[in-house]
Amino acid sequence: MKAEIITIGDEILIGQIVDTNSAYISKELNKIGISVYQITSIQDDREHILEAFAFAKAHAELVIVTGGLGPTKDDITKHTFCEFLNDELVLDQNVLDHVTHLFKTYIKKPMLAANKTQAYVPSTAEVLLNQYGTAPGMWMESDGTIFISMPGVPYEMRGLMENEVIPRLRDRFKLPFILHKTFLTYGMGESAIAEIIEDFENELPSTIKLAYLPSLGRVRLRLSTYGDDQEIVNKMIREQSDKLLPLIGDIFVGYEEEGEFEELIANLLIAQGKTLAIAESCTGGQMVERFTSKSGASRYLKGSLVTYATQSKIDILKVDASVIEEHSVVSAAVAEQMATNARKLYQSDIAISTTGNAGPTKGDSDVPIGTVFIGIATEDGVRSYEFMMGNHRERVMGKTVNKAMELLKGTLEDHQLKK
Amino acid sequence: MKAEIITIGDEILIGQIVDTNSAYISKELNKIGISVYQITSIQDDREHILEAFAFAKAHAELVIVTGGLGPTKDDITKHTFCEFLNDELVLDQNVLDHVTHLFKTYIKKPMLAANKTQAYVPSTAEVLLNQYGTAPGMWMESDGTIFISMPGVPYEMRGLMENEVIPRLRDRFKLPFILHKTFLTYGMGESAIAEIIEDFENELPSTIKLAYLPSLGRVRLRLSTYGDDQEIVNKMIREQSDKLLPLIGDIFVGYEEEGEFEELIANLLIAQGKTLAIAESCTGGQMVERFTSKSGASRYLKGSLVTYATQSKIDILKVDASVIEEHSVVSAAVAEQMATNARKLYQSDIAISTTGNAGPTKGDSDVPIGTVFIGIATEDGVRSYEFMMGNHRERVMGKTVNKAMELLKGTLEDHQLKK
Repeated sequence: MKAEIITIGDEILIGQIVDTNSAYISKELNKIGISVYQITSIQDDREHILEAFAFAKAHAELVIVTGGLGPTKDDITKHTFCEFLNDELVLDQNVLDHVTHLFKTYIKKPMLAANKTQAYVPSTAEVLLNQYGTAPGMWMESDGTIFISMPGVPYEMRGLMENEVIPRLRDRFKLPFILHKTFLTYGMGESAIAEIIEDFENELPSTIKLAYLPSLGRVRLRLSTYGDDQEIVNKMIREQSDKLLPLIGDIFVGYEEEGEFEELIANLLIAQGKTLAIAESCTGGQMVERFTSKSGASRYLKGSLVTYATQSKIDILKVDASVIEEHSVVSAAVAEQMATNARKLYQSDIAISTTGNAGPTKGDSDVPIGTVFIGIATEDGVRSYEFMMGNHRERVMGKTVNKAMELLKGTLEDHQLKK
Repeated sequence: MKAEIITIGDEILIGQIVDTNSAYISKELNKIGISVYQITSIQDDREHILEAFAFAKAHAELVIVTGGLGPTKDDITKHTFCEFLNDELVLDQNVLDHVTHLFKTYIKKPMLAANKTQAYVPSTAEVLLNQYGTAPGMWMESDGTIFISMPGVPYEMRGLMENEVIPRLRDRFKLPFILHKTFLTYGMGESAIAEIIEDFENELPSTIKLAYLPSLGRVRLRLSTYGDDQEIVNKMIREQSDKLLPLIGDIFVGYEEEGEFEELIANLLIAQGKTLAIAESCTGGQMVERFTSKSGASRYLKGSLVTYATQSKIDILKVDASVIEEHSVVSAAVAEQMATNARKLYQSDIAISTTGNAGPTKGDSDVPIGTVFIGIATEDGVRSYEFMMGNHRERVMGKTVNKAMELLKGTLEDHQLKK
């Protein structure tokens, strides 16, 4: 089954917001065996919306549309659907009751005429309940193509996908099984990898696709295939995986589908009953944010410090001023003291630290821009690691966080093995 | 001038990455007077790429294409351009020299055959130098439509846009002036705002567009127009702005185009010669990350703490255990102590703190999920503010950071006024 996603909103086309909805929808559709053929973003413009609907209808059996369902005048998706489907808006009493309930219970403000218009839907539309908002989801059909319309507000759209759209698609269609397996590698460029796995790539069956995705110091290698029988699909990928792994053994660090590194680390910490503290300098809070953005971090995270100023490393993290003087603030010695002292301060089992120069200008250290040290302190002592992360600020920060996550995961896995 | 953006890559269509390139490109084109008509994301598939090129050529005078330029076999954009333009690939000696130079100077690994293929470009293409990578940008034309091809790696694409694409477009075309003015409001829903400004909206000239963008507790109101004369365009928006502002005075907090709040705060701090410290609990490092993601934070940011565990608030931030006992860890008293003590610990002029319950489960406090306190300590003492941010974890965190930024900006502006 082929799908197209259409996101509607001037704010996308003028670059005021990044369209994150499409990636979420694509991922969820893929999980149930539906491939996305095209993602199209267009303005809140009647003619253009009609043209995009017609194009999608000609190419896809499922069209998912987000945006343009607000109560204000700039939102025209519903009216345009009526025109496209030769339908008219009718009041849906269930939606009206739901909107009234939301206003009474949560919004606690009088309901306005504009909000009542949200209860009008095309007469042939099946309503999908939007738990988190006043704009309903809608399921419509036109000559065998399904059109699903949802609000563009990400958390409302996600609720609708999870609770309404995905279950209905699964119930109604026998869908194939799509499998992606993504190998995370570190330390080699994509063309060097391509040379190492050249024979493997040439011998891949035509039903399996291989893709290279370089990003922030890593290259991800993705194998993809699909089929009706889940076991056969799994076996096909497993066979290729068994051939690929020995070739990239030195640079392989994990599978993306196992979860993000912060989740894997969280699981390892919880399984081992250990706690974590973080002391960041050059990564400026990006590392702790990765953990706290997921719920449940309080089970293992004691806390973190961003000691951005050199003086705060001395005052708060109790790094020796003499060590900074001797080795510079970007050094193995400082990274190690930061980790050791953060571990003590937070009384955690493990602590990780970063210190480096992300640029664009040199800070309180003379080391070249891009120099980074990562320290890890455990009950067994402290270790540090040195890297050169290039001269692009954003990338230095991102690569350092990725590398620190990898080292932390490795440390926890080693510990697991030793037991 | 109308433009279309085409982003090529299976990773987008399966939801493995979010396409951030399109938003960046749209924004940059808008700044020089070019409107984006459509953004289309498609797979690395020859037929589909050809179809998208043909569609874009029929609709737009400028087509910006990203992705599919890597050295590996899954990247086919260049070959497909040749097919579309009835052209062939030829070796470009300048590109080959550049790639050779990059390998010698930065990559420090032997250059491979695959890398040499990156120096081949369609014979009619004008090469755009990619400072940050081995895949060149290319400028091609077909029956009056300009096609620009760039790599999908964000920082390489940005370098090309800034140094090559935008200057060339400016030089070659007389472009209109596009103006967006976005009013940030806080504390009222979009339909309530629509009711307040109904007359204003009805009387807006047809050449000015109004849009409502609700997000994380704020509603952004955007006025947009364009024209050949910058002064007239400015005047048109100023006139409407003068009518709109009195209507939304109570909820208006600033203009988006003045910069993000963290930049405005950074400027105020630097102008006032003041330093900042941050103590975060429920926002988990998101606030400090906003500041450190921009370069120059070391000029005013002393550092930050994430005291996620209650015990770390006592041990490190020296919050009184008895105060936590009496008021709970999510309380005005704790927010105030966190701010006061962070200010002392980091010896900063100002400190801001957050404590709250973002959910989904209750933590060490019995307050309802969504309850948040923000504290601000200055030389004049400490204040705290209480909010109810709803029951959606991600949103509670995002709304709290937005609100804290707003309060901090307000505090600094008040201080400015008092002087």
